[in-house]
Amino acid sequence: MIYLSSDYTEGAHPDILRRLVDTNLEQTTGYGTDPHCQSAADLIRKACSAPAADVHFLVGGTQANLTVIAAALRPHQGVLSAETGHIQSHESGAIEATGHRVIPLQSPLGKIDADSIDRFCQTHFDDPNREHAVKPAMVYLSHPTELGTLYSLDELKAIREVCTRHSLLLYLDGARLAYALASPQNDVTLPDLARHCDVFYIGGTKCGALFGEAVVISNESLKTDFRYIIKQRGGMLAKGRLLGLQFEAMFQNNLYFEIGRHAIALALKIRQAFSDKGVELLIDSETNQQFPILKQDQIDRIGREFAYTWWQEAGDDQSAIRFCTSWATRPEAVSRLVELIRVL
Amino acid sequence: MIYLSSDYTEGAHPDILRRLVDTNLEQTTGYGTDPHCQSAADLIRKACSAPAADVHFLVGGTQANLTVIAAALRPHQGVLSAETGHIQSHESGAIEATGHRVIPLQSPLGKIDADSIDRFCQTHFDDPNREHAVKPAMVYLSHPTELGTLYSLDELKAIREVCTRHSLLLYLDGARLAYALASPQNDVTLPDLARHCDVFYIGGTKCGALFGEAVVISNESLKTDFRYIIKQRGGMLAKGRLLGLQFEAMFQNNLYFEIGRHAIALALKIRQAFSDKGVELLIDSETNQQFPILKQDQIDRIGREFAYTWWQEAGDDQSAIRFCTSWATRPEAVSRLVELIRVL
Amino acid sequence: MIYLSSDYTEGAHPDILRRLVDTNLEQTTGYGTDPHCQSAADLIRKACSAPAADVHFLVGGTQANLTVIAAALRPHQGVLSAETGHIQSHESGAIEATGHRVIPLQSPLGKIDADSIDRFCQTHFDDPNREHAVKPAMVYLSHPTELGTLYSLDELKAIREVCTRHSLLLYLDGARLAYALASPQNDVTLPDLARHCDVFYIGGTKCGALFGEAVVISNESLKTDFRYIIKQRGGMLAKGRLLGLQFEAMFQNNLYFEIGRHAIALALKIRQAFSDKGVELLIDSETNQQFPILKQDQIDRIGREFAYTWWQEAGDDQSAIRFCTSWATRPEAVSRLVELIRVL
Amino acid sequence: MIYLSSDYTEGAHPDILRRLVDTNLEQTTGYGTDPHCQSAADLIRKACSAPAADVHFLVGGTQANLTVIAAALRPHQGVLSAETGHIQSHESGAIEATGHRVIPLQSPLGKIDADSIDRFCQTHFDDPNREHAVKPAMVYLSHPTELGTLYSLDELKAIREVCTRHSLLLYLDGARLAYALASPQNDVTLPDLARHCDVFYIGGTKCGALFGEAVVISNESLKTDFRYIIKQRGGMLAKGRLLGLQFEAMFQNNLYFEIGRHAIALALKIRQAFSDKGVELLIDSETNQQFPILKQDQIDRIGREFAYTWWQEAGDDQSAIRFCTSWATRPEAVSRLVELIRVL
Repeated sequence: MIYLSSDYTEGAHPDILRRLVDTNLEQTTGYGTDPHCQSAADLIRKACSAPAADVHFLVGGTQANLTVIAAALRPHQGVLSAETGHIQSHESGAIEATGHRVIPLQSPLGKIDADSIDRFCQTHFDDPNREHAVKPAMVYLSHPTELGTLYSLDELKAIREVCTRHSLLLYLDGARLAYALASPQNDVTLPDLARHCDVFYIGGTKCGALFGEAVVISNESLKTDFRYIIKQRGGMLAKGRLLGLQFEAMFQNNLYFEIGRHAIALALKIRQAFSDKGVELLIDSETNQQFPILKQDQIDRIGREFAYTWWQEAGDDQSAIRFCTSWATRPEAVSRLVELIRVL
Repeated sequence: MIYLSSDYTEGAHPDILRRLVDTNLEQTTGYGTDPHCQSAADLIRKACSAPAADVHFLVGGTQANLTVIAAALRPHQGVLSAETGHIQSHESGAIEATGHRVIPLQSPLGKIDADSIDRFCQTHFDDPNREHAVKPAMVYLSHPTELGTLYSLDELKAIREVCTRHSLLLYLDGARLAYALASPQNDVTLPDLARHCDVFYIGGTKCGALFGEAVVISNESLKTDFRYIIKQRGGMLAKGRLLGLQFEAMFQNNLYFEIGRHAIALALKIRQAFSDKGVELLIDSETNQQFPILKQDQIDRIGREFAYTWWQEAGDDQSAIRFCTSWATRPEAVSRLVELIRVL
Repeated sequence: MIYLSSDYTEGAHPDILRRLVDTNLEQTTGYGTDPHCQSAADLIRKACSAPAADVHFLVGGTQANLTVIAAALRPHQGVLSAETGHIQSHESGAIEATGHRVIPLQSPLGKIDADSIDRFCQTHFDDPNREHAVKPAMVYLSHPTELGTLYSLDELKAIREVCTRHSLLLYLDGARLAYALASPQNDVTLPDLARHCDVFYIGGTKCGALFGEAVVISNESLKTDFRYIIKQRGGMLAKGRLLGLQFEAMFQNNLYFEIGRHAIALALKIRQAFSDKGVELLIDSETNQQFPILKQDQIDRIGREFAYTWWQEAGDDQSAIRFCTSWATRPEAVSRLVELIRVL
Repeated sequence: MIYLSSDYTEGAHPDILRRLVDTNLEQTTGYGTDPHCQSAADLIRKACSAPAADVHFLVGGTQANLTVIAAALRPHQGVLSAETGHIQSHESGAIEATGHRVIPLQSPLGKIDADSIDRFCQTHFDDPNREHAVKPAMVYLSHPTELGTLYSLDELKAIREVCTRHSLLLYLDGARLAYALASPQNDVTLPDLARHCDVFYIGGTKCGALFGEAVVISNESLKTDFRYIIKQRGGMLAKGRLLGLQFEAMFQNNLYFEIGRHAIALALKIRQAFSDKGVELLIDSETNQQFPILKQDQIDRIGREFAYTWWQEAGDDQSAIRFCTSWATRPEAVSRLVELIRVL
């Protein structure tokens, strides 16, 4: 059985793991104050053309989201998210547990747009009784989204503009950012993210690391005391260098981008095969997640050799299922899948 | 410079790291549902003689503490702790951030006793206006304590008894548990902990793992929905098997106990050397932390070769400093330190 | 200008106010431990045929909601509500501030039904990854709803049944309960509420009191330590007797029901007048709120003499506006409004 | 039985109650937007010589405390308080429930001083690992304190100075402020409080109102969105004018000061009587609370005619008990008590 069900089914990219092994007996201080964290942060600031940004390393995505949001918002403030956003649908109420409402906006393709954000805010701020409602104060995006779709740079700029107009912070979740950056469809760069977002994170866990997410803070007011909040929320790793080491490995020699390219090339092969076969895709994604709509017997035939993720019912006794590629996906595995698709 | 400043200055014990390397390309499901987590949990249940216990793996100690306490308490309930307890003094208000007060009790040697718990509770429950105060509902111990001291089995039983009498949950933080279990002074076993505590955790981070703590839940009512809370608090590692693998390694072939023995043997050598020299110890600890009281010039001389942790002023221009041993401490390093002590 | 914009524009029903005046110099203990609170609780238990219920008096509705929900739920649990429910739309995130998500369900007439609750829960509990989502654990209803509509006893029983099936608590917000109980459309009694809900509250503020809501707890497990939570959430009134006195007045001599009848009789007159005039109503409510759909010039003409609440746009340059009646609404005021309606 | 056990055993001062009665049928908007709230706020601004201050009316003291603190602090920040402070000892963990630690400082006479605040902060900010501890960010005082003692203007200024130096907000709880203002020992005026505190509240509940506390905010940054937080914490009274009306009454014709003077005159008579009799006082208070230390048989004799509050054991089979005076205390009652004291 070959797992294409998610992008976290293996350990780490060998280059990353090797670095952990090679440095194992080094002695360093703890809690992210070591030289590897500092050097990784420098590499990321450089990759983002953001010399003044603060960079913090956290173990996981939910932890990054709840820490950033708890650090940024006052108690009466809420965060706007796609209804399919991770904080709305996959985090067990982590944001609410910090006291804040997630305000879901409709998101047909996993994305929200500047207009719907604007309308929501306009309605709120026009209301003389607005104090009886949650105040919108942050926009949460993910890039790619949970459905593998991407924001264009123009869309991102439009959202930035509406955020500025309504005094909203803009936060972008890059759990799968490597796969966005490597997509032929993408025109948003790391410097764009550092410029237009108040804060965003560069995902490691789903992009080849054992674990780890790098939070990049551009907005000056969010920098204050961020480490207190990391510690308070349980996110300050004692052997913090493990995070630094992994991001050092990912941002030296362009490994992070290489990992993305590998996964995208294979994902696009899968996409092409379904397309050639005339299979409809739930979402037209050019990132590492592909969502073909198949009949149950087709799914069963694939399921004999490949682990996939069941996604949703899609009418006519059909379902959308998800395939994910990653740094670890072997080309031969994809070739075998493509063969299977041809004879579905 | 040799670091004896803490027990988390290196990576992982080589046997643990090797296992991560050997299994790196295995494909498994995520979030702790993989076979390694299951087998590690089985090994721990066996080591605890607690076949019905639930075992969950979390990345760090503060995360384990806040998750257990948030899962266990109702909003008006507080947790009693030594004033030197980790949740009171080293977690940036992590417990309060979940809504609960930490109620510090005096703790001359880092320990609290059954009597002081009993007196506090008696006063609370006798008060007709008790509803205006935080209700004591849990006792938090650590073993060894932050000061390296140990509870005897009799002390633990007495605390259990007072907890039962006042309907308090008993939770024990075993961040450095390997060092307790290997101490000649210790008479508390893993089965004792599983029997007398409602919940406790077996520390990995400070005992040879890259990271990881195993929460062992004996009390039936605490088992319900614990995984929701782990996820909500940001503690559910995507590649959860990394935790399972490490605890598998630690609880096969008695590695966990072996790590403890190694560190304790070296710590006792350091202790003996100070003792032989007539240097007073702040705390008479037989675990992996040693707290000699030294003059500044003595500290300076040691500090040229060894990194230590400054602990507290101790009168007469003297200070207590801390040395920690671990799985990674080399016998030659300790021999060199002992030499230095002889000629202080 | 005559205010028909809400049911809290005046002080208290004269009988209630008189009781405050008459008892002003009585000396009692504080915090709800006085004889008036006890006698009011007894009267309410009797009116609910619920001799074992616990009754607590709180100052306001948002306070009652957040206190009940904080007391009832564990951290990962959420509460299902109509999207128009007060906790979802009018409480500034009060529930989230206690750590819990409000999960909105579609509610065309302000109501949710057993089927949609069932479907939501079924989907949640069927999901193998349900631990990544907020666990539904409570249903929040209001009776009448924010739109003045009512649950039938059959609907309430069906919801109770689905709550029991999925282990959900059932909580009913009776901010305007007097107006439900007096509506010709209503077949739900106080004993029905005490029997079918785990907890509900009888509204005072909008039903003739200066302020005050009586929380009635039937479910044994919710009774424990409820006063601690009231105190912790800032809801324990020092001169608690003020609440007891008002509910004593409302539940002696059937004043509460009398207040409801007065308001409903007048509301139905307004309703009839609009109906006679051929004006459409946004909602067909037989409680104290009426929502006619009018053109702007009609609204302007009424607005010269009456204060109303603008509600929502309703197409064709029309808007729905709201009129509220209460104990304080004078029949002559309604007669004048009816005259105005006739010549719109 | 005459109650001298607390200052909230009766209803409201007759002038206040009369105003509620006289205005009962007025129609106003809700939630504190009515003319009475505005006029009361103006009167308070004038009394405080603080034309730019924001004034908000809340129902009770715990509510005021938790709302101010939740509005002011970021998640990792804590509030320094006397260990006898109301937020530390009488609010069931209300502050922790908003996520913040109360940090108790020793307070022999119910007071904390600039030096101990300074020392605590210095230790925190000097610590290189300070991010692992709760950050001190606010000082909470009460005036008078829970023990009836007073801060001198010099002490208040010194505390202000240390707050400024360490970037702490200064918040003063004036639950019994009328009794401070009327004490011969007091040299702190309302304008002093508005000038030196970032925020404070003027207590109504214990000073003659049915209920109500007026929060006065001087610090510009605390003003933003305060009403959202009031609403979110359940403190926004629907018939908000009830609060406005009471404070209008209290701040017209100097009633608030008159109430204080009445109570203090009687309290000092009680104090003198004990003093004449040679009875020791636990605390040398010149406000409305008196704490004589008596033998059990003396207490029993007084207890036959007067309700008091038992306070604490005081050695030699003696206890300290508390007498409170208020607007409602009758001179004849005090004369009778004085007679009893003479023959103890």
